[in-house]
Amino acid sequence: MSELRTVKWVNGHVRMIDQTKLPDKLTYLTIRDYRKMAGAISDMVVRGAPAIGVAAAMGLALAANRSRARTKEQLMRELGKAAELLRESRPTAWNLFWAIDRVLQMAEKASGTTAEVKRQIVKEACDMAEEEVSASHRIGEFGAGLLTDGDGVLTHCNAGTLATVSYGTALAPIRTAIRNGKKLRVFATETRPRLQGAKLTTFELIKDRIPVTLIVDGAAGYVMRNGMVSKVIVGADRITKEFVVNKVGTYMLALAAQANNVPFYVAAPFSTFHLEGDQSSVKIEERDADEVTHIGSKRIAARGVKVFNPAFDVTPIDLVKAFITEKGVVSPETLRASTTT
Amino acid sequence: MSELRTVKWVNGHVRMIDQTKLPDKLTYLTIRDYRKMAGAISDMVVRGAPAIGVAAAMGLALAANRSRARTKEQLMRELGKAAELLRESRPTAWNLFWAIDRVLQMAEKASGTTAEVKRQIVKEACDMAEEEVSASHRIGEFGAGLLTDGDGVLTHCNAGTLATVSYGTALAPIRTAIRNGKKLRVFATETRPRLQGAKLTTFELIKDRIPVTLIVDGAAGYVMRNGMVSKVIVGADRITKEFVVNKVGTYMLALAAQANNVPFYVAAPFSTFHLEGDQSSVKIEERDADEVTHIGSKRIAARGVKVFNPAFDVTPIDLVKAFITEKGVVSPETLRASTTT
Repeated sequence: MSELRTVKWVNGHVRMIDQTKLPDKLTYLTIRDYRKMAGAISDMVVRGAPAIGVAAAMGLALAANRSRARTKEQLMRELGKAAELLRESRPTAWNLFWAIDRVLQMAEKASGTTAEVKRQIVKEACDMAEEEVSASHRIGEFGAGLLTDGDGVLTHCNAGTLATVSYGTALAPIRTAIRNGKKLRVFATETRPRLQGAKLTTFELIKDRIPVTLIVDGAAGYVMRNGMVSKVIVGADRITKEFVVNKVGTYMLALAAQANNVPFYVAAPFSTFHLEGDQSSVKIEERDADEVTHIGSKRIAARGVKVFNPAFDVTPIDLVKAFITEKGVVSPETLRASTTT
Repeated sequence: MSELRTVKWVNGHVRMIDQTKLPDKLTYLTIRDYRKMAGAISDMVVRGAPAIGVAAAMGLALAANRSRARTKEQLMRELGKAAELLRESRPTAWNLFWAIDRVLQMAEKASGTTAEVKRQIVKEACDMAEEEVSASHRIGEFGAGLLTDGDGVLTHCNAGTLATVSYGTALAPIRTAIRNGKKLRVFATETRPRLQGAKLTTFELIKDRIPVTLIVDGAAGYVMRNGMVSKVIVGADRITKEFVVNKVGTYMLALAAQANNVPFYVAAPFSTFHLEGDQSSVKIEERDADEVTHIGSKRIAARGVKVFNPAFDVTPIDLVKAFITEKGVVSPETLRASTTT
């Protein structure tokens, strides 16, 4: 599983795992058009901040690849239009905006014929995928050093191969530590409402024969208080100098970790960091009521109930023991003191 | 809804709402035998600590009523056997053990013919039901004083009419405050894995036209941090001088309330208090993996995953602002200093 690719450029198209079909079926979709890519991101066919960043970059690569523009200006206008749609696909993960801006800036600066510029855009998107994979592996190496033989490691949502291009963010240190011979047990929260923990994290870990125990989100405090969990590692959708935006429920996990002296780590590549961001710059996505009131087509709540369904929450940086990045392990103090880039 | 009876003695039988059919259908079951009552408690046809206390007492009343014992000794042996089975129906809620002991002690002391003793047992169980109803109403009155016009009140699981004989524990102050003309909005956590919040609390509140918003359990911290919630009120399954045992997830709500300066109240009748209990005296029920891996017959997790499914958790009493009881509002300090009865 850790060797699979969630998003891959193949012969002018994008091949992606259809995550809405997991864990029942591991199937692939071929995306040939940036509009389809925006839809796939909105519908969570592909999800996870690093994965949707690369998916958006590849969406722009699809737009470039299929463009009939004869001038750079025309190509840039088309890319701008594609970028606009892709930016609206989901509002919260920083990687999406970062990736789109990186491709557009690269294209802006690129020289040569339009055919050459288009090739460079495709190459940039493919390079970004490779960079995310090596970032994941480096996160694995840096993070593995924080894990001890016998640890119970709690994680939330899915921050594994399926949230990245491969290998993961929060799951990377666990994979590397196990490859290095440490014995670990993972506690996966099911992660309502979309159940990414129950559906994706357990699927990945079972495939890789990593011991995993599924719990409901509300049981996380109990397993920490009972000493079953010695570390928490989560991914992130956006990190600023003040807070971490991640899957709803993360904030309560961080509070429970603090109350029980369990180190709380956030694993993320630098493509997730938006250091100059403040609270007003973040839009917390609110998704459909149906995600809460229905499982598949089955209604599980009383008819007519009002629902509030934020997809993410906000965790103050002081609750984070350290950030595990591809450049090393960074304390919240260091992050706060860092020069805004 | 608040006038309905969850458990009722009717002509020598027990009539109970079948809570496994809610919110789709409001149907009643007739229980004629204590073994069926033990099964109904195990299967959560009836649930909620005060409700299962009364249900167990009525289980003993059924055993007495159907007994052909000719001597008091024979009757007590039969009651002892019924009590044994009923005590094994669920392990955590104190009310169950309290109610069984109360009926047995009353029967032990009772004088008269076996027919007279049997009638006294039935009367005792019916009295207990009435006492729970008036306790709920008094909890409503004492608790309503703590609520302010405009409050957002978060509650967990179901601690309403359906968890008691009528009116509720955590929902009682909300009902009374609204009857007194205060405007409130309730935030109901869905309460995985059994979804009592989504299925039962929203059903009750919608029936009573009380504004309610459903959230996933993991969103509770976010709504508190955003100022949408100004009070938390939960019920309890067992209260000692040191901790509160309640539906899994309660502990993390209490931590989130503390971090956000939101008062965290526990509403419960004295039948839930076991002041001499310590941690070793409490068994936290662990229920089937299926409750987590399936919704109805639909599998929602990867095949073969290991599950840990505790039904309750433990909240230190220091996180509780006050207990709302039928005898008044009691601080944790007062409770701790109280003489063990």
